[in-house]
Amino acid sequence: MPTVIASSLRDKRLPTPCLLLDETRLLANCARVSAHVRRQGLCLRPHLKTVKNAELARHCMASPHGPATVSTLAEADYFFRHGITDLCYAVGMVPQKLDRVLALRRQGADLSVVLDAAESVHLLDAALASLRTNDDSPLPVLLEIDCDGHRSGLAPEGSELPAAAEQLRRSTGLCLRGVLTHAGGAYDAPHTDRCATLAQQEGHAVVLAARRLREAGHACPVVSAGSTPTVLLGRYPAGVTEVRAGVYPFMDLTMAGLGVCTLDDIALSVLTTVLGRRRSDGSLVVDAGWTALSADRGLTRQWPFQGYGLVCREDGTLLPGLRVSETNQEHGIISCGPVAPAQAMPGPAACPDLPVGTRLRILPNHACATAACHAGYVLLRDGRPADFLTRCRGW
Amino acid sequence: MPTVIASSLRDKRLPTPCLLLDETRLLANCARVSAHVRRQGLCLRPHLKTVKNAELARHCMASPHGPATVSTLAEADYFFRHGITDLCYAVGMVPQKLDRVLALRRQGADLSVVLDAAESVHLLDAALASLRTNDDSPLPVLLEIDCDGHRSGLAPEGSELPAAAEQLRRSTGLCLRGVLTHAGGAYDAPHTDRCATLAQQEGHAVVLAARRLREAGHACPVVSAGSTPTVLLGRYPAGVTEVRAGVYPFMDLTMAGLGVCTLDDIALSVLTTVLGRRRSDGSLVVDAGWTALSADRGLTRQWPFQGYGLVCREDGTLLPGLRVSETNQEHGIISCGPVAPAQAMPGPAACPDLPVGTRLRILPNHACATAACHAGYVLLRDGRPADFLTRCRGW
Repeated sequence: MPTVIASSLRDKRLPTPCLLLDETRLLANCARVSAHVRRQGLCLRPHLKTVKNAELARHCMASPHGPATVSTLAEADYFFRHGITDLCYAVGMVPQKLDRVLALRRQGADLSVVLDAAESVHLLDAALASLRTNDDSPLPVLLEIDCDGHRSGLAPEGSELPAAAEQLRRSTGLCLRGVLTHAGGAYDAPHTDRCATLAQQEGHAVVLAARRLREAGHACPVVSAGSTPTVLLGRYPAGVTEVRAGVYPFMDLTMAGLGVCTLDDIALSVLTTVLGRRRSDGSLVVDAGWTALSADRGLTRQWPFQGYGLVCREDGTLLPGLRVSETNQEHGIISCGPVAPAQAMPGPAACPDLPVGTRLRILPNHACATAACHAGYVLLRDGRPADFLTRCRGW
Repeated sequence: MPTVIASSLRDKRLPTPCLLLDETRLLANCARVSAHVRRQGLCLRPHLKTVKNAELARHCMASPHGPATVSTLAEADYFFRHGITDLCYAVGMVPQKLDRVLALRRQGADLSVVLDAAESVHLLDAALASLRTNDDSPLPVLLEIDCDGHRSGLAPEGSELPAAAEQLRRSTGLCLRGVLTHAGGAYDAPHTDRCATLAQQEGHAVVLAARRLREAGHACPVVSAGSTPTVLLGRYPAGVTEVRAGVYPFMDLTMAGLGVCTLDDIALSVLTTVLGRRRSDGSLVVDAGWTALSADRGLTRQWPFQGYGLVCREDGTLLPGLRVSETNQEHGIISCGPVAPAQAMPGPAACPDLPVGTRLRILPNHACATAACHAGYVLLRDGRPADFLTRCRGW
């Protein structure tokens, strides 16, 4: 824990900028998603790239051992050391990273990897030939399926998919565990109906891929899909076995804009202090710049008025119409303008004249990016600082 | 040092993504700025918010003890522990942070702070009344001057400036050391001529402020201005005593776009690995997302074709026409398009078909933001990994 935060937890006077996490909202968000997924008879494999902390992970997972998803091998290491054994590393695997994956598996992690081409299967298999021993069980692979042209993945209906599965069948070091997709396009969806459609599209793509693999004689036990908007706003077709979602424990302005949550559900915020005013237009200058908020603009096409984040009083009450309109490295500029659609009330005509030293909270555009700026979270219990939770960082 | 990087330095096989720093380019950039500032008879007070490492700071400073500028009190702590005593904390001071400033000064740091309103002087003075002892010398203050309406600062010609100085004269805990300004607007300047004009404007604002203070009987020994573009592209009028600049040791695509440097001067890059291809358009998928590159878009209005960074081979040779067009948390998408103006050669019509596992380097839009994503730098000496230098983080 940073020394400055440790001493401030004792005297209840937090330094700024710092990252706040409201425990009540966090638990409510986790409970909502768990119940929603359970009602559909699905297994939840939360994506721990958002929380990056073992205590917070426990609120998301079905058991202390997982299942869970990670985005870096540093996360896999960290969460395995904290007892989480059922892990999927959901970023395309390359031979250079195999030594770390094997080291974790030899210690007892059931760590699976993701591939999306016969070429990659071939490369990994060749690399494993010199790395693995007779004691190593085959490395489980999920074939990534492209459901929306957004990023990686095999077309569910094309000839590349059975070719990659065939390559896996011939491999001694690898085995097919299932198929996986991610509707990254859901974040560009302008409204909730579109997210619901995308969940169907996501589910159908991965179910079709699984059916084709099974028809070709492959076991395909895992059929994995998901993102926070599609999980919460959609319903998956039969055949999907598990869903992945990451940002839901914290929520953010992007999720509020998509209709996944309200502003009152956002558990994460950045505490900041007013340093002064800009004379040219009366804007407030605060000590949260892009190092504290991230430079993530959120979905600017849909919600340009969120800037780098919306503004609350220190107690979390929204100040409608205010937003962080600019960021420098350690400065944020708070100005006043048209309200974002997620805000219910109209804003003031000018920035309120808050004195130097006033504390404010900034709601994040993208909780994953804002949290990534910080060493950890000050956990607020009943509104008061109760603990500091560190984040796993790096790769 | 992260364990993964430590072992990779031994076997010369770096993990990806990781941050590379070319020592030859770094030293050349530092030498260029030092010579340029010395020729003008000015003192250089480098802004260490970019390098955030004590060894790198030594390449920037006139002596091992400074002078230097910092953007957080964590930097002030860190650099003071590394022997740098002459420090200016160039973000507006608030009473809540006084205890840390006093602690450093009592250990021997000549740490000055920045204020921009009589109200702030009054607040700080009141807070100091209960914090300082008779052994504490007055805390030196630089009054911030607004030269371009960009952020904070007092108008050099207005009545607020002498009022703040008067408030300082009456204070027992504070004393006036000088005036300081920063032409933040230089980063919006579309070309080099405009940066030269801004350097004049920046210099005239702060020289005028100093003259008015001296005419009112205040000593004003320090007259501080600067930013990398204005320092390198402009000349300051007589009366400016010191200049501050931050990004010049590394340079970046924003500086190249402004005409401050060429692409061959950029010392910082992110090493990444090709994970696969996007079927829909042939783009490359790499393992450097916004966690490794930052979400900083640079000056998108002027140079939209830089995306999240330009692309080089592993050896640093530019691949013209390629750019990181999209970033997710751990994925970057490299696509092909019109070349950025800083690139001399035309690009290819389609993304080259690079095999999975190929290593590339990404040149950053904004070196400060990209470096802030990483725990430290892999220093390249004669192109080979030679050392790992950690960065000071947090506040």
